[in-house]
Amino acid sequence: MTVTADTTSLESGVRSYSRTWPTTFQRAKGSFLYTPDDEPYLDFFTGAGVMSYGHNNPILKDALLRYLTEDNIVHSLDMLTTAREDFLNTFTEQILRPRGLDHTVMFPGPGGANAVEAALKLARKITGRESIVNFTNAFHGMTLGALAVTGNSMKRGGAGIPLVHATPMPYDDYFDGDVPDFVYFERMLADSGSGLNKPAAVIVETVQGEGGVNAARLEWLRQLAEVCKKYEILLIVDDIQVGCGRTGGFFSFEEAGIVPDIICLSKAISGYGLPLALTLIRPELDVWEPGEHNGTFRGFAPAFVTATEAIRTYWSDKTLEESTISKGAFVEATLNSMVAKRPEGELTAKGRGLIRGLEFADPEKAAETCRNAFDAGLLVETSGPRDEVIKLLPPLTISEDELNDGLTLLRNAATDALD
Amino acid sequence: MTVTADTTSLESGVRSYSRTWPTTFQRAKGSFLYTPDDEPYLDFFTGAGVMSYGHNNPILKDALLRYLTEDNIVHSLDMLTTAREDFLNTFTEQILRPRGLDHTVMFPGPGGANAVEAALKLARKITGRESIVNFTNAFHGMTLGALAVTGNSMKRGGAGIPLVHATPMPYDDYFDGDVPDFVYFERMLADSGSGLNKPAAVIVETVQGEGGVNAARLEWLRQLAEVCKKYEILLIVDDIQVGCGRTGGFFSFEEAGIVPDIICLSKAISGYGLPLALTLIRPELDVWEPGEHNGTFRGFAPAFVTATEAIRTYWSDKTLEESTISKGAFVEATLNSMVAKRPEGELTAKGRGLIRGLEFADPEKAAETCRNAFDAGLLVETSGPRDEVIKLLPPLTISEDELNDGLTLLRNAATDALD
Amino acid sequence: MTVTADTTSLESGVRSYSRTWPTTFQRAKGSFLYTPDDEPYLDFFTGAGVMSYGHNNPILKDALLRYLTEDNIVHSLDMLTTAREDFLNTFTEQILRPRGLDHTVMFPGPGGANAVEAALKLARKITGRESIVNFTNAFHGMTLGALAVTGNSMKRGGAGIPLVHATPMPYDDYFDGDVPDFVYFERMLADSGSGLNKPAAVIVETVQGEGGVNAARLEWLRQLAEVCKKYEILLIVDDIQVGCGRTGGFFSFEEAGIVPDIICLSKAISGYGLPLALTLIRPELDVWEPGEHNGTFRGFAPAFVTATEAIRTYWSDKTLEESTISKGAFVEATLNSMVAKRPEGELTAKGRGLIRGLEFADPEKAAETCRNAFDAGLLVETSGPRDEVIKLLPPLTISEDELNDGLTLLRNAATDALD
Amino acid sequence: MTVTADTTSLESGVRSYSRTWPTTFQRAKGSFLYTPDDEPYLDFFTGAGVMSYGHNNPILKDALLRYLTEDNIVHSLDMLTTAREDFLNTFTEQILRPRGLDHTVMFPGPGGANAVEAALKLARKITGRESIVNFTNAFHGMTLGALAVTGNSMKRGGAGIPLVHATPMPYDDYFDGDVPDFVYFERMLADSGSGLNKPAAVIVETVQGEGGVNAARLEWLRQLAEVCKKYEILLIVDDIQVGCGRTGGFFSFEEAGIVPDIICLSKAISGYGLPLALTLIRPELDVWEPGEHNGTFRGFAPAFVTATEAIRTYWSDKTLEESTISKGAFVEATLNSMVAKRPEGELTAKGRGLIRGLEFADPEKAAETCRNAFDAGLLVETSGPRDEVIKLLPPLTISEDELNDGLTLLRNAATDALD
Repeated sequence: MTVTADTTSLESGVRSYSRTWPTTFQRAKGSFLYTPDDEPYLDFFTGAGVMSYGHNNPILKDALLRYLTEDNIVHSLDMLTTAREDFLNTFTEQILRPRGLDHTVMFPGPGGANAVEAALKLARKITGRESIVNFTNAFHGMTLGALAVTGNSMKRGGAGIPLVHATPMPYDDYFDGDVPDFVYFERMLADSGSGLNKPAAVIVETVQGEGGVNAARLEWLRQLAEVCKKYEILLIVDDIQVGCGRTGGFFSFEEAGIVPDIICLSKAISGYGLPLALTLIRPELDVWEPGEHNGTFRGFAPAFVTATEAIRTYWSDKTLEESTISKGAFVEATLNSMVAKRPEGELTAKGRGLIRGLEFADPEKAAETCRNAFDAGLLVETSGPRDEVIKLLPPLTISEDELNDGLTLLRNAATDALD
Repeated sequence: MTVTADTTSLESGVRSYSRTWPTTFQRAKGSFLYTPDDEPYLDFFTGAGVMSYGHNNPILKDALLRYLTEDNIVHSLDMLTTAREDFLNTFTEQILRPRGLDHTVMFPGPGGANAVEAALKLARKITGRESIVNFTNAFHGMTLGALAVTGNSMKRGGAGIPLVHATPMPYDDYFDGDVPDFVYFERMLADSGSGLNKPAAVIVETVQGEGGVNAARLEWLRQLAEVCKKYEILLIVDDIQVGCGRTGGFFSFEEAGIVPDIICLSKAISGYGLPLALTLIRPELDVWEPGEHNGTFRGFAPAFVTATEAIRTYWSDKTLEESTISKGAFVEATLNSMVAKRPEGELTAKGRGLIRGLEFADPEKAAETCRNAFDAGLLVETSGPRDEVIKLLPPLTISEDELNDGLTLLRNAATDALD
Repeated sequence: MTVTADTTSLESGVRSYSRTWPTTFQRAKGSFLYTPDDEPYLDFFTGAGVMSYGHNNPILKDALLRYLTEDNIVHSLDMLTTAREDFLNTFTEQILRPRGLDHTVMFPGPGGANAVEAALKLARKITGRESIVNFTNAFHGMTLGALAVTGNSMKRGGAGIPLVHATPMPYDDYFDGDVPDFVYFERMLADSGSGLNKPAAVIVETVQGEGGVNAARLEWLRQLAEVCKKYEILLIVDDIQVGCGRTGGFFSFEEAGIVPDIICLSKAISGYGLPLALTLIRPELDVWEPGEHNGTFRGFAPAFVTATEAIRTYWSDKTLEESTISKGAFVEATLNSMVAKRPEGELTAKGRGLIRGLEFADPEKAAETCRNAFDAGLLVETSGPRDEVIKLLPPLTISEDELNDGLTLLRNAATDALD
Repeated sequence: MTVTADTTSLESGVRSYSRTWPTTFQRAKGSFLYTPDDEPYLDFFTGAGVMSYGHNNPILKDALLRYLTEDNIVHSLDMLTTAREDFLNTFTEQILRPRGLDHTVMFPGPGGANAVEAALKLARKITGRESIVNFTNAFHGMTLGALAVTGNSMKRGGAGIPLVHATPMPYDDYFDGDVPDFVYFERMLADSGSGLNKPAAVIVETVQGEGGVNAARLEWLRQLAEVCKKYEILLIVDDIQVGCGRTGGFFSFEEAGIVPDIICLSKAISGYGLPLALTLIRPELDVWEPGEHNGTFRGFAPAFVTATEAIRTYWSDKTLEESTISKGAFVEATLNSMVAKRPEGELTAKGRGLIRGLEFADPEKAAETCRNAFDAGLLVETSGPRDEVIKLLPPLTISEDELNDGLTLLRNAATDALD
């Protein structure tokens, strides 16, 4: 097996990360990826937040290998399997019910976009309305329904059709405090002459990852939930990137004390990088007809197995949650100290829990910092509309030393870029 | 681990196969699924055509277990990995190039709908046109872009928005020979006053699985390719269900001698039920900007491993292809003999290769036959707009005895239903 | 008042008829238009069928001048006026009720496109469906709703947005008899998997004027009405160009014995070239809320006056209807004799009543014939997707001599072009 | 001719003004309408601003009667006529050029909605973008293109399809000064991740008539024009209701010193209530192909005649403009004194020039005031999203005594309603 220049030429030009990190990876363990030559890279990217429990987590690996070795079912659409039942019971009893959520679980397909598509379809079916309110700099996926509620203009341009049935509203702090929260949205809803098509639902990320690590204030989330309730609009939380413990609690909205009507999960839910997505639905809203939304990979059994094991291992007590909050605070403090040492406005620290961002006034410096970091063995990527924010998504299971090492590498990379 | 009535109540009402087959499955091997009590079910459904090489195929299993055991990378978005490179090289050299296809490979996301969405987006971007021509009784997926080109009215109704930018044209033999092929389509294209929005692309399945096992004649496919060429419309073949050898050759369109501009693959491509999808693009049409279409699970490494192993094992010579054709002929002959023994019009045999259909004049008899078959230990499902066609998708690797046994079970089930 | 080259430069480049007929007109009387130098032009165009009772018809002129002189109301939106009441009573009692039509009258705005927009909006509101079926080579107007159901690709291109929510079906004889009537449409409606969005309504012209003077057979119209009834689709007849007596009876569909759910009228309804449009609605379908569709010029009082006078003058007995049929037969015979004298296929005669067409195998010859006719003092225009059909729309009140003169001029013009 | 209860039953239930003012009108002169019994009604509504020069203005009437009596052409689509040339020359030389406008003149059809549809189509064609930005409480018409940029939710609901391709932005003072002007719009435009589809054009009324007599500040209009210029978005001013001198100058935007790319005129342009509409286009933007937008009543000759006469009579000097401003100031002062006598917040005075509004905190009081006024012989209507604003649109030619009388009637009607 050799790395050849040929392979990239065999792929579509749409490929992206292999451009950012022009090397080949082979193995992975915990917080590190390794090249075929065993060169290690500390992973503060974790496959866009998928590998929250570290790469090839040994507990999950054991469960997975056992499952496969014993010839348990790998693929069965949405037929009943013991793996599916085990997951449903465990997820419901250990995750949903203790948090006061009586949602039913839908398996909408293998990826996050499927979870979003199903959520939007259902919201429209329930309300009989077509329009969805999304937020500035939102990211929800690349299929046409999900893309219509995504902000990035380059990605929207790829649709090839006008993306309609969605109206963007300003996310929290979009106007740097110049405009009262929701004044625009509420005024438009209250005014029957505003011309705003009354939305079926609002879809929101509590922390916008792709959008630049924008963390909404909990108070803002609560106000949003109240606006939705007042105007009988469904509230969809897309917790695909920042759910599953990324901000501390299992769901990122727990801390705000809100209960979304529909919740989208994917990425870290399987715990092992296996494709799985969930759409959680308040039971009185579960008006699907049997088979009205289907799909081949809607319930990938090995993913059920690792997901179930991950819940049992990491969510039966508060250990992981508390550790995440504590590590997040450490990253925050470190970033704040970096910011404090630079001229006013050059850098800004952002984020919540273990999704953190370092915003650069000059996007080119952010890119340079990433390149420096890569050269030093640290994987970090940028996000935001101008790729101006370095996004930190270390494994939740990262050790304190690794975390400290990574931050040191990041600090050096930034210093080299900025000085 | 116990089967409980509870688990289904925890799932959304959208679940479907667990209604058709109200039992729990646990293990699987070759052509059989097993319940926790080791009750075997002969699988003529194979997860909607996914398990073409049989369940938990031992050769692929070995490769998969080795990969996982060695802590190779499981998840890495579209970063370069040795698994990815190995797949790209193998797929290109053993599948594409020998068939005269110079397409580049895009990984659009984990499932078939992603492959279709990417194909449609790209076709629109290339041509600057929005409209797509699809065919009556087509099935391409549940995300909004794919759903717009899907025929089933119940599933379309689930969109919650009007599905536009698509115009259905009659599939082969839609009028039972009363209307010359393509007379309608060509007349509409040639007439600048027809009101048909000029399509960016035509999307077609060479055999419509969900639509009722309708196999287009090769001549019809060739004519379609010519119409597309004449009017400068892109030709997209959705080979998600009937590609990867289901009809004999690796691609279902090979036999017709046509070269699609864009090809969608998924389902059986990994060979092991692992979510993977490909969009193959003629190189001069690969106009994506880097990252213009992205997604988290776009290149699931374990799926690369089993897919690569499957190609090496089954596609380095003609053995599988010939066996599939031979088995297909056997099924065809069996179905024909069933049809011949019944009153004229009661049953009709359909299909190509190892995707075969038995159409019932009375849809209720099709349902009853499936229930009888299930009770006797055979899994078959219906398809078609009225669920009137029993669809047979046995593993390509099924033994002749198993195939014969299954057909006997089917014959008995049908006889019990019809008499 | 001088004709200057300047004036055309002051107008938008969208102007069209002033290009076809590059002269200035000033007066008009009966079947003739006159230039400032009193050069007469025999008018076989009549403002696209508006001036059916001849230009400045003296009976209508008297009524109009009296109304204006006495300072009766000219403009009042949809306030009640004596002119409005008089029209409503006369139109209902002399036109609708004797024909067994119990429709209510809506004034949707000043032009035909308003009548079509109102019809489509209402059909969608009634049925809760979005899609409309229109026909190949239909023409219904330039506003976005009407344009979506219009066939001409150049005009559709002017929309600047994708025109959706409409599916074109083949008009009568679209396939020169190769395909049974409605086989396509009915099959698509009957098949729940066809992918055709179930239409709210069908909109049809009984004779397509702009589309090339295509006259549907009465049997085809009856079958269409039956298909609509069977599938609970509303039937809208756009009688804007060929209603008001153009084919003989007041409504062009009378002869077929069908009763449309909604009828659009405009053009000749005022009888004097004054902007007026009507949308006629079966009373049980009149579900508009007050003011739900409004508009400034919805009920132009002078147009009511001339329309009322025209009904009293021309529609209290069968004289006009019979004369129109007789003149139409004369034109038909004349065109047939022209066709017969030319090589097979060079010319084709088309039409019904006093809307007649002469189709040229070579569109350039049609254009040349029009130019020749203009030079000789006859106004005729082309229609059809390739501008290949000369459309004849003489005043219904034309004298036999004038009709004969005009046909002679046309014959000579065509002969000069073709020889 | 008798008023019968029957006539309203013959009309569609969509009729509206005949409900508000349940009587029949017959004659009209200057500032008054008269019933068949010669009961006078002072007209502060003027057919929604159409009759700006008074009903049956004698100067225009003479010109119109002369034109009709001499058998000049009434209808000729867009053929060249002396009436058309005369209008084009006069309008260009006396209206456009003196105001520094080099726009070409398009005749898009007979009504305001046609002018708006043509403007939107052209803006999309020029820019290749689909989206339009409109404003809260905008009113632009009832055809699908115009309705999509109209705010009123009841009227939007009548479309029967989702109205897309438009995003409403807050009109001037929408947030009572809480939010800086354009902060929302500009932020969305500047941010490539906002999710706002980049608009082809902004369409704006300088004073929103139907929306509740909201007069934008001149400074706001200038800022809007600058935002459009900065982001290369076309600026369309819909001057249908408040152009033609309603605010003083011929165009309502003159005072702000801005030059729109496209201007829509209709309503008062003919001066006599005759249907006519114009779309004015900056010459470099006039990219229409000949005939790309057409229509039957695009250039109603009698309307050209009265429009030309009105320009000659009223727009060759500043007399009318100054008188309008002076009368407007008088109405404003009167309304302000009414407001001052009532409790804080009960009434608010609004408007500019001779379009004025009196907003009631309690919409029911506005309705009651209108009913009282009608009973006393004064026609005024409400506008605004809750019908809470009485809109005053007296003739520009009203005498000071009539104006004073009308305001006295209004004051009494309001006092009776409020006390």
